[in-house]
Amino acid sequence: MKIHYPNGKPYLVNDDKKKTKNQLNKKKVSYSNRGMTLEEDLNRTNEYYLAKKRAVIHKKPIPIQVVNVDYPHRSAAKITEAYYKKASTTDYNGVYAGHYIDFEAKETRNKTSFPLKNFHEHQLEHMEACAVQGGVCFVIIRFSTLNRVFLLDFSLLKKWWQQQFNKGGKKSIPLSAMIEDGHELQYSLAPRLPYLDIIDTLYSIK
Amino acid sequence: MKIHYPNGKPYLVNDDKKKTKNQLNKKKVSYSNRGMTLEEDLNRTNEYYLAKKRAVIHKKPIPIQVVNVDYPHRSAAKITEAYYKKASTTDYNGVYAGHYIDFEAKETRNKTSFPLKNFHEHQLEHMEACAVQGGVCFVIIRFSTLNRVFLLDFSLLKKWWQQQFNKGGKKSIPLSAMIEDGHELQYSLAPRLPYLDIIDTLYSIK
Repeated sequence: MKIHYPNGKPYLVNDDKKKTKNQLNKKKVSYSNRGMTLEEDLNRTNEYYLAKKRAVIHKKPIPIQVVNVDYPHRSAAKITEAYYKKASTTDYNGVYAGHYIDFEAKETRNKTSFPLKNFHEHQLEHMEACAVQGGVCFVIIRFSTLNRVFLLDFSLLKKWWQQQFNKGGKKSIPLSAMIEDGHELQYSLAPRLPYLDIIDTLYSIK
Repeated sequence: MKIHYPNGKPYLVNDDKKKTKNQLNKKKVSYSNRGMTLEEDLNRTNEYYLAKKRAVIHKKPIPIQVVNVDYPHRSAAKITEAYYKKASTTDYNGVYAGHYIDFEAKETRNKTSFPLKNFHEHQLEHMEACAVQGGVCFVIIRFSTLNRVFLLDFSLLKKWWQQQFNKGGKKSIPLSAMIEDGHELQYSLAPRLPYLDIIDTLYSIK
């Protein structure tokens, strides 16, 4: 039996809703992440890990150079002039089962490869330095048009990064290489992007 | 022989300069940090550790809630309205010899004790969660008037934090306790505040 709201609209259970939305959009992509950005997905994942006492991993605040501040009230300083600064490290870090965790997350709308220009030299240097200290370093890359997310260990990113400077080197990582060398993350309800499961396997944790 | 500049002022070698300055100020405090804040000292120390490949430890950017941004030029976004947010973690973290490092740095002008209200509940909770994950957590406290700096391991800070809620509990950590339970840092040229030496001993690193 079909149930209707008083306004005439049909009552849909969650599955139906999604189907209708999919049919309306007529696109063959996964809607499992419901329009969230990779950053939102990772923040929720980290909140879940924190709540479950599995790991303490946070996104760092965006570095901002404050130039001018007004003090209209004692309690609420208002910044009236400030500029974004270039980050000198990666976006996420923390601790998990005795390991230092450090990663960067990036999205691309490209469908066949991930352009290396999305990373900066200093981020690679930072990850290299952290890896030397025994840290667990990686990147999480989302192909937003395909809605596929991959975890790539720093050692592999480094190889791809370095080859671009060779004669005829590729300026991007092909999706095929990501599928072969990387680890695809599957969206789940909680945590949304269970990336630590991949880290467990990669680094033989527990 | 006393040497004079052409303007008649006597030429002083560094030691004399300091002595004269000390005599002029007539204060019996150490001038070894030359008016730097604890934050500046720690940033320089961390830069030194990074350059020497000893550790990768950074101060996190101050969290700011951006409300409005102007784009006068394509390349220079100007933030015209923003507010400081409360930090949910500590100020410094990173990796050292396979260990996750997490600490908070605070200064007080008090001469006999460090008021516990300088820390926030959520910072203690954060350090507790990091310690559970096997992280190395501590605080660095500077008595700015005395120019004495102490490192206090999280386990000890926690004890002091918890006792304040008992009947008749102290609301601050006495300097005497800091001397007894903490580890005093001595300023040096490079690194300015060699706090990792204390961590080596405390956590039997290397």
